[in-house]
Amino acid sequence: MKKTTSGPRSGCPINIALEIFGDRWSLLIVRDLMFKGRNTYKEFLEAEEGIATNILAERLQRLEATGIILKQPDPADGRKTIYQLTAKGIDLAPVLVEMILWSARYEETAAPSEAIRDMRENRQRFISTVRKSLKNPRRNGQPR
Amino acid sequence: MKKTTSGPRSGCPINIALEIFGDRWSLLIVRDLMFKGRNTYKEFLEAEEGIATNILAERLQRLEATGIILKQPDPADGRKTIYQLTAKGIDLAPVLVEMILWSARYEETAAPSEAIRDMRENRQRFISTVRKSLKNPRRNGQPR
Repeated sequence: MKKTTSGPRSGCPINIALEIFGDRWSLLIVRDLMFKGRNTYKEFLEAEEGIATNILAERLQRLEATGIILKQPDPADGRKTIYQLTAKGIDLAPVLVEMILWSARYEETAAPSEAIRDMRENRQRFISTVRKSLKNPRRNGQPR
Repeated sequence: MKKTTSGPRSGCPINIALEIFGDRWSLLIVRDLMFKGRNTYKEFLEAEEGIATNILAERLQRLEATGIILKQPDPADGRKTIYQLTAKGIDLAPVLVEMILWSARYEETAAPSEAIRDMRENRQRFISTVRKSLKNPRRNGQPR
């Protein structure tokens, strides 16, 4: 149970969640870490939505300050910095999954319909698989 | 299946969802309609987070343009305008529920812990109740 230092605008849990990650770039970084195997600054920059360097740097700092991601030296190469989701960050998986399902239902997306059907019918299994993959992260962060 | 006219930055379903409602004020309006019984411009302005009039007007237009809300004359008083969630808007309930649960788990919120426990243990029942209440909306929109 932590509170941001300046204090949220209201105690509503939805408002508090939105004050923490409620801008599209923050959640796209979480998506990259969670589903795309990206975990370096350079890899986040390569995301197809085209995040600007200043926004990326600011959002990474904010996500670290709110305990959603962790910044650390790459165990494989100490000169490099990698980012990882914390348990708090991994626990955003159900929020992202519901966004994917909503989007696939109402919009034209690039997500394969079989993958969406499987995700919808086996939400918990899908989320467990994501959790397992993040506890044993791929260091080289090849985009899937 | 509709696509925004200018086209999204990528076909990723998370990105598309975020382009549609990925700013905190849009989702707070959806929250007001979904959980707080607010459905007029004046009532949205009264939300404790203190939305600015120009932002409110812009977000209402955008939510209407993306088919999440519907603007119509109040059946009880034709001179008034009320807003309602469409089926597409109501289907955001699982996203908001997962945000509430995440927030209640990691942050200090004003949500009563029994209500959160019940929501976590009976997600589907909670969402069904919300759906039913929205299909039979309270016209006077007293905040709950």
